[in-house]
Amino acid sequence: MPDLLQMIQEKDEQGLREFCEALFPGVVAEMLDELGATEAWEVLKHAPAEVQAEIFPFFSIHFQVQLVDLIGTQALSQIIEDMSPDDRVDLLERLDPEHVESVLRLVAQAERSDIRKLLSYPEDSAGSIMTTEYASLPVEITVKEALDRLRVQAPSRETIYYVYVTDEGRHLQGFLSLRKLILEKPNTKLGDIMQRDVISVRVDEDQEVVAQEIARYDFIAIPVVDNQNRLVGIVTHDDAADVMEEEATEDAHMLGAVQPLEDGYVATPFFELARKRGVWLIILLGAASLTARVLQLVGPTESGSWMVLFLPMVLASGGNAGSQSATLVIRALALDETKGRVPWIAWREIRIGALLGSVLAALSFFLAQLMVGNQASVVVMLTVFCVVSVGTITGAMLPLGLKRLGLDPAFMSTPLIAALSDMFGVVIYYTTASFAVHLIF
Amino acid sequence: MPDLLQMIQEKDEQGLREFCEALFPGVVAEMLDELGATEAWEVLKHAPAEVQAEIFPFFSIHFQVQLVDLIGTQALSQIIEDMSPDDRVDLLERLDPEHVESVLRLVAQAERSDIRKLLSYPEDSAGSIMTTEYASLPVEITVKEALDRLRVQAPSRETIYYVYVTDEGRHLQGFLSLRKLILEKPNTKLGDIMQRDVISVRVDEDQEVVAQEIARYDFIAIPVVDNQNRLVGIVTHDDAADVMEEEATEDAHMLGAVQPLEDGYVATPFFELARKRGVWLIILLGAASLTARVLQLVGPTESGSWMVLFLPMVLASGGNAGSQSATLVIRALALDETKGRVPWIAWREIRIGALLGSVLAALSFFLAQLMVGNQASVVVMLTVFCVVSVGTITGAMLPLGLKRLGLDPAFMSTPLIAALSDMFGVVIYYTTASFAVHLIF
Repeated sequence: MPDLLQMIQEKDEQGLREFCEALFPGVVAEMLDELGATEAWEVLKHAPAEVQAEIFPFFSIHFQVQLVDLIGTQALSQIIEDMSPDDRVDLLERLDPEHVESVLRLVAQAERSDIRKLLSYPEDSAGSIMTTEYASLPVEITVKEALDRLRVQAPSRETIYYVYVTDEGRHLQGFLSLRKLILEKPNTKLGDIMQRDVISVRVDEDQEVVAQEIARYDFIAIPVVDNQNRLVGIVTHDDAADVMEEEATEDAHMLGAVQPLEDGYVATPFFELARKRGVWLIILLGAASLTARVLQLVGPTESGSWMVLFLPMVLASGGNAGSQSATLVIRALALDETKGRVPWIAWREIRIGALLGSVLAALSFFLAQLMVGNQASVVVMLTVFCVVSVGTITGAMLPLGLKRLGLDPAFMSTPLIAALSDMFGVVIYYTTASFAVHLIF
Repeated sequence: MPDLLQMIQEKDEQGLREFCEALFPGVVAEMLDELGATEAWEVLKHAPAEVQAEIFPFFSIHFQVQLVDLIGTQALSQIIEDMSPDDRVDLLERLDPEHVESVLRLVAQAERSDIRKLLSYPEDSAGSIMTTEYASLPVEITVKEALDRLRVQAPSRETIYYVYVTDEGRHLQGFLSLRKLILEKPNTKLGDIMQRDVISVRVDEDQEVVAQEIARYDFIAIPVVDNQNRLVGIVTHDDAADVMEEEATEDAHMLGAVQPLEDGYVATPFFELARKRGVWLIILLGAASLTARVLQLVGPTESGSWMVLFLPMVLASGGNAGSQSATLVIRALALDETKGRVPWIAWREIRIGALLGSVLAALSFFLAQLMVGNQASVVVMLTVFCVVSVGTITGAMLPLGLKRLGLDPAFMSTPLIAALSDMFGVVIYYTTASFAVHLIF
């Protein structure tokens, strides 16, 4: 492996260029990712635009956006021109509209209208993930002519292994795999050998359904048509796999009561992460306060029994906070996002735990104040702060610990985290109460 | 669409055969799946073995096993011979060893040793999901010769779009895509154009890592090598997608405290499903009983305060049961398993809820008996039965209801289910207690 940092220092332009061109683009992207954005661009800028455009999509979307800020509009517009239509739309969707406009002004007219068209499809639709660079052929030509035309189309097409047969109005008429094409006799007409009942999806179909269709039939790609059965694009297997992963992550986050994170656990900034967790913790605290109110109505009536009222709420707060971090960390582990970042994760979870703990403590202070009064409020507040902050860090660290021990981190189920948190919560709650009774009141 | 049931009754053998041959195998499989196993085989048995072998892998593995019981050993061995190596190994792994032996005895020698070899790789390894039907070429031939040889290999290979270059000892030396091959001049030697740094995986690598590599680099297939870098197989993108889905399901189940279900929520039999949920509910009840014990040590000391001791345990039981069903149903919805089965799911969850509720109620009776005594035990037992059975059915129905309303079922996060269950649990617990005090004691 070349020492890229040294090559940058020595301004070895030719060496850096050769590095970018020699290896598989996905491998180059991985090595540059480890350098960080600034150094990555110091390497990448020496490569020709078409090589840059091949490497670019292999970066995470988050890293791509970081890189864009380092690249001049001129250089960026060239990369955008050379990128495949679906990849560049993914990127442009993340940039602010003004930036997009200034870049598009420098992009060739044909590409520009293709980009605008793709950008106009609703998020999460087939149109938003498809590429317009598909291989298509007319019905009346022979196999030999088809292969000649495919050779011409090949360099600019996402795939030539699936070929779609269309009429002059671009209506989808049939399908042929390249495997079938090279097995047939050269003079056979496409119309005689193509498969006529083509499985396709509508351009406004949900991306999740598109991914499911591709997975169900083991396709390399699926054609996308408009409401008049005109071929407008294809979705390829790799994009379908990305969608499946995205949707599984979204479901996992929601199940753990976290608003879905667009950029993954590691790439999401601190306050956005805190907000997407805090919103749900607050809603759940609200629900738990109703339980406290119900307890007040049906539960114990002796004076001094206020501790019971808030017991479920206090315990649930810790369990919920722990469930959230466990969910996030376990999904991040499954996506291989956490490598070498354990101390960073621990520190971030400690800070998020303290922040969320403070917010929830303040809210539960008011709730207890409203329902019971001074003594309760202070004890409930202190306990909620402890269980939420400890729950948050524990929920994150236990799965990482299991992983380190070579065990399955998902063993730390959210109910198990909640059970551990309950035990701890009970101790804190009653200890705080007995201190409070002696010291404060 | 043809009326298959009528064709079966009329014994329209030719019509049924044509149906199997005319449509895309994946579509045939889907239509047959709706008929049920017995009728599906009444249709399928009229098709030639090679067509049966193409349709077979598109059935769920569960449905395949059902079909196997209807097919004679002779017919099955022919299908097995024609199936692709990875698909048939998936199926054979699910059959009992005696059955496998009797089928293998009728399979041709070459196929038989290939099957035994693949069956010998550990579960979840690259070897267990790879196929041995890859396209490979020697390094010294020209592009023209390569294309001629690929035409010969094509009919029996899983894919010919990725071609691997090997020496006489089958050592992996290079890689070529068919796209590149058809673009090169006919007289070029493969050695001059092949990519030499081939990204491959070891045969004992974890299947999850293999799937991640394929997804990371957008490959159609990845070569699998042994410890001497000899090519032993390939894993294709569609199998990688299956692995990703499988692992996401396993993680989701574990996070919701369910032992992973091999066959999915719908296909798993009643008692297996009950066992895989019950085990965790019992472990979690044990953990919650520790919380009760801790409360006994640090908590309220007044007589009559036993209700507080078991409050967290009672509430956690309902929440855990609800979390489990919500997790299972939400994942099943994501995998599109629930269509048209809502009443069936409701009925099954009611029965599972009653069963799990009874088991947990009995256990908590003994726990309460041990710690406190008669009065507590009866109230705790009755409450646990109620919250577990109601939690189970509610956790399953709420996501299905959201889906019906066009909302995202994953909105019903496990902490939200737990919060709702808490509210209900408190009411049941104290109502039962006040009844018990008046009626029983």
